[in-house]
Amino acid sequence: MKKIFVIGIGPGEESYMTPAAKEAILASDVVIGYKTYIDLIPHLVENKKVIDSGMKKEIERCNLALDLAEEGSTVSLVSSGDPGIYGMAGAMLEVKGQRDSTVIIEVIPGVTAVSAAAAVLGAPLMHDFTVISLSDLLTDWEVIKKRLHLAAEGDFVIALYNPKSKGRVTQIEEARDILLKYRKKETPVGIVRNAKREGEAHMITTLDEMLQHPIDMLTVVIIGNSNTFIQGNKIITPRGYAL
Amino acid sequence: MKKIFVIGIGPGEESYMTPAAKEAILASDVVIGYKTYIDLIPHLVENKKVIDSGMKKEIERCNLALDLAEEGSTVSLVSSGDPGIYGMAGAMLEVKGQRDSTVIIEVIPGVTAVSAAAAVLGAPLMHDFTVISLSDLLTDWEVIKKRLHLAAEGDFVIALYNPKSKGRVTQIEEARDILLKYRKKETPVGIVRNAKREGEAHMITTLDEMLQHPIDMLTVVIIGNSNTFIQGNKIITPRGYAL
Ligand SMILES: C[S@@+](CC[C@H](N)C(=O)[O-])C[C@H]1O[C@@H](n2cnc3c(N)ncnc32)[C@H](O)[C@@H]1O
Ligand SMILES: C[S@@+](CC[C@H](N)C(=O)[O-])C[C@H]1O[C@@H](n2cnc3c(N)ncnc32)[C@H](O)[C@@H]1O
Repeated sequence: MKKIFVIGIGPGEESYMTPAAKEAILASDVVIGYKTYIDLIPHLVENKKVIDSGMKKEIERCNLALDLAEEGSTVSLVSSGDPGIYGMAGAMLEVKGQRDSTVIIEVIPGVTAVSAAAAVLGAPLMHDFTVISLSDLLTDWEVIKKRLHLAAEGDFVIALYNPKSKGRVTQIEEARDILLKYRKKETPVGIVRNAKREGEAHMITTLDEMLQHPIDMLTVVIIGNSNTFIQGNKIITPRGYAL
Repeated sequence: MKKIFVIGIGPGEESYMTPAAKEAILASDVVIGYKTYIDLIPHLVENKKVIDSGMKKEIERCNLALDLAEEGSTVSLVSSGDPGIYGMAGAMLEVKGQRDSTVIIEVIPGVTAVSAAAAVLGAPLMHDFTVISLSDLLTDWEVIKKRLHLAAEGDFVIALYNPKSKGRVTQIEEARDILLKYRKKETPVGIVRNAKREGEAHMITTLDEMLQHPIDMLTVVIIGNSNTFIQGNKIITPRGYAL
């Protein structure tokens, strides 16, 4: 059929995976993705060729998917969350273009981490927001810093993906220092690890104290705007209704 | 059970509604939401009390949900997309707080419009992005304009929700003028109407020509960053991999 599905399986828990994602996997001959993601859906990949790809091999993975599709297989390329948000959709389309292939590529959206994390925290988004990745593997740190300054100045709610890894620990500290230039110390911050999947944990804290809590690559950090408040065990950014 | 589910049903097509959303609706005695949304899921609301709420009655709707839950009903409050993104999650939690209620409120995330629209367009997000609503009903237009300036300056991909309504037509024009101060005329723009639901239509255009195409309240507009390009019939924002 010469088709590749680029699939978002959502945050992880199967009840947050869309039927469209499930059907696409079931319709595929080959499923390619990180072992961690594929391990979440063992019953969907029974009797299929499963190719577990290690970290940092995005382009290889896309070339492999295209090879297999060119040979006639229907291929699923699996991302967590939404494949269009720091996922595989862009790389797959770029590789297709570079190879001038006619394979059909269908992107299947999913529930992205910021939506899953926001649901755990209450309603921290609700108003204009930005999504920023703190990973400087593919992006200049100067560009990321500039975006943090501008997002803070614009009073956007800010969601940080890839906030901190074992080898990359200073970015989240610098990010916080930048935000503190524009927002008060008491600004509510939500830290959600493994949102809507096994091992879910979250912490509601402030810009001042956020670094006292564990943050890693399985975590999204959401920083409120100037109106965001904490109510009980929830974070709320008001939209502006008169109650 | 004294519980309210604030549910995101996704963009509209049932294959993009999560099983969690479905199960919550099925577990409810009462379902409250806009008629347009509830009409998308007739078979899920059979034998349930359905309360169709008109436009602009968000707070009334939340008070009603809380009244019914206090009386012992399990209530579903339905938003399109993700309820935490310009949806009902915030208002519902605020009303609960104001009334000092102990009803449990569970937010069920969904696939938001920007993810659905991005999937239709290819991969326009992929890098840091902002979500901005052009509705100035609840937000000062000056604040929105400032955010547009800062988002443009930061080279964020920009997604515009609520871009234009019958009575509100100049905001999208002003927004485009602001973006043109920072980005070139050829910047790719995707306009998606009814993403992933009946009547889906999309247009790939440029900042220069975007206003020549129909834009309304059923539309999301996505404006690329300085690296975004058009490849065939798709929009791609490269993440920065070496191909
Ligand atoms: C390479 S990005 C992939 C994002 C994914 N495509 C999405 O839309 O959610 C990986 C980052 O997403 C965030 N993330 C993904 N899933 C998460 C979850 N369930 N809970 C918390 N953070 C998550 C973390 O910040 C992680 O470092
Ligand atoms: C009040 S907001 C609700 C957003 C919703 N909670 C979400 O997460 O998608 C309404 C705006 O969302 C956008 N929208 C929602 N669903 C859409 C769809 N399926 N296609 C295109 N735009 C959509 C439009 O910009 C619309 O004016």
